[in-house]
Amino acid sequence: MRAAVFRQGSFVVETLPEPALAPGQVLVRTRSCGICGTDLHAARFTQEFVELSRRAGGRWNMDGVRDVVFGHEFVGEVVANGPATDGRFRPGQLVTSMPLTIAGDTVHGIGYNPDIPGGFAEFMPLAERMLLPLPEGMDPDHAALTEPLAVGVHAVSFARLAADDVPLVIGCGPIGLAVIAALKLRGVGPIIAADYSPVRRALAGRMGADVLVDPAAQSPYAVLERSVTPAGFDGSRFAALFTVGERQRPSVLFECVGVPGLLQAMLEGAPSGARIVVVGVCMEADRIEPFFGILKQVNLQFVLAYTAAEFAETLGHIGAGRIDVAPLITGRVGLDGVGQAFTDLASPERHAKVLVEPWR
Amino acid sequence: MRAAVFRQGSFVVETLPEPALAPGQVLVRTRSCGICGTDLHAARFTQEFVELSRRAGGRWNMDGVRDVVFGHEFVGEVVANGPATDGRFRPGQLVTSMPLTIAGDTVHGIGYNPDIPGGFAEFMPLAERMLLPLPEGMDPDHAALTEPLAVGVHAVSFARLAADDVPLVIGCGPIGLAVIAALKLRGVGPIIAADYSPVRRALAGRMGADVLVDPAAQSPYAVLERSVTPAGFDGSRFAALFTVGERQRPSVLFECVGVPGLLQAMLEGAPSGARIVVVGVCMEADRIEPFFGILKQVNLQFVLAYTAAEFAETLGHIGAGRIDVAPLITGRVGLDGVGQAFTDLASPERHAKVLVEPWR
Repeated sequence: MRAAVFRQGSFVVETLPEPALAPGQVLVRTRSCGICGTDLHAARFTQEFVELSRRAGGRWNMDGVRDVVFGHEFVGEVVANGPATDGRFRPGQLVTSMPLTIAGDTVHGIGYNPDIPGGFAEFMPLAERMLLPLPEGMDPDHAALTEPLAVGVHAVSFARLAADDVPLVIGCGPIGLAVIAALKLRGVGPIIAADYSPVRRALAGRMGADVLVDPAAQSPYAVLERSVTPAGFDGSRFAALFTVGERQRPSVLFECVGVPGLLQAMLEGAPSGARIVVVGVCMEADRIEPFFGILKQVNLQFVLAYTAAEFAETLGHIGAGRIDVAPLITGRVGLDGVGQAFTDLASPERHAKVLVEPWR
Repeated sequence: MRAAVFRQGSFVVETLPEPALAPGQVLVRTRSCGICGTDLHAARFTQEFVELSRRAGGRWNMDGVRDVVFGHEFVGEVVANGPATDGRFRPGQLVTSMPLTIAGDTVHGIGYNPDIPGGFAEFMPLAERMLLPLPEGMDPDHAALTEPLAVGVHAVSFARLAADDVPLVIGCGPIGLAVIAALKLRGVGPIIAADYSPVRRALAGRMGADVLVDPAAQSPYAVLERSVTPAGFDGSRFAALFTVGERQRPSVLFECVGVPGLLQAMLEGAPSGARIVVVGVCMEADRIEPFFGILKQVNLQFVLAYTAAEFAETLGHIGAGRIDVAPLITGRVGLDGVGQAFTDLASPERHAKVLVEPWR
């Protein structure tokens, strides 16, 4: 089969053997597979990525030496049921799955694993037990957005939202947009979204953000502070200590960028008592001043991925049109376009989500 | 009145005018006042303390130039009711208060405030509205421990404890010991407590810790991991993804030291899904690797101080003997001993809490 192989820092299209199926696995032909920001990071800072994954004890076993086929946001069609499957899926049926497969008793990651090809290859060995059929009539490519959108659904579920919460989303790349979509489903607002890119701000508006902030023009934290503070509120006043009449609304901030320095900016900018949900995956060391968090009693919730239930729920939301992911798909490439797409994705003005179509 | 005045880096005993009383204030004669770890920090790193307080927008208005009288863990006796008081307290009555006073409509901090003397002076101008009478028969000096113990009660209330939570307390200085006491009141366990000092570990045992760990001999995180993990548990197994039968118990870690580097050690050492409550007041910049928090979906709750209700509740616990603070009082000094006490407190083997007695 053909695959875009990541080898020592760049992509080459190669012919690999088709995956052998372990008991319980189904051979799935990739229809499309999104390129994720973490893919960009793993390609650009491979050694750091490998070393950090090892130290932190994650499921990713990419080693920086062996070839690896990326791709963990996929949709495909069933080709053949392997040994010891129940035959629950017929050939040709469209399916998606969390980027994990099962061999025997063990769970394996897909996407940063030299032993199992990801969605930038023609075929994947997926676990029958984990496959989800696409809802009737769903645009198949939209199902490739299930994975990043599920990250947003998960992050919002970890945010412990109250009805009067005011959310601020910092960063409107695919993950920030997914968070906005999930917030919109919950009916909280106003949803404030900040990004330097006008293209991304426009996408944030389409996904449901109510207030769009260009951080170059005004502080998103000042906008949030105004949104949560009733007229005449003065925290130093006697009344604030003893009454509950005149209070700030609670706020929850979503870090959807994943770069060093942002957490400290959020600790400094957040209203008192804010929760910060860290959805962006910062893979470098970062500097914070805990005292800012202490004075404000900030809560910092780190989140990762999603549960199986959230993944299935997200597929349902997209399939039923409750989340419209069409605006997020800004490009499509074949396997030989993967390298260029990784370059292009560095610019926020050009793309949100690029789909790789290995059959092209 | 006499006071231990902090002036340009050292303590001098001086005679100051007695505080003038604003409407609603009561003159209170200090009976005893504890020395807090934050006092040590403010004395040793005054400029950094002042600058950070300013940047973070706290209530402390110490400026590094003017004289200041520290002391925010106090108990005293009423001397005189000022103008516009209700006369709810009779002269001679024993009282304590949160370290805040009220003048007109504005709340002022006590302890790092050049305009209002703290408990290292003979008299303080406290707000009648905030005074708490000591429970009948309570050892007055024990009431001076209300403030640090309330910090523990507050931290535990922010920990969102579940019945099967396993707590680990890192650092058994006064704040760690307060957290242990508050955990014991809640009935969770085993309470694991870690400190390099044998004296502090012994105090931790007296306050209610069930497992005492010397980090020089074994990793507190390994002890915690064993405590939360059922026999035969293997997170990589297929079953772990789909069943809820065999799970790790939830864990909550309390950071009670407040030094750079500890948060990262906790992020690396914590079990997956752990909550970390940051009670120690780190006033320096710190370095973390967010990726460790992300992979484990750690929750980091910064906390500060206590509510008025928690302060009163803590006084009640101590007064009724539900928290025995007697072992924590390891020294007493007069005003002229304050400087030496600050030096002595640097060694964890010698002291937990030193009380200043301005009448000596």
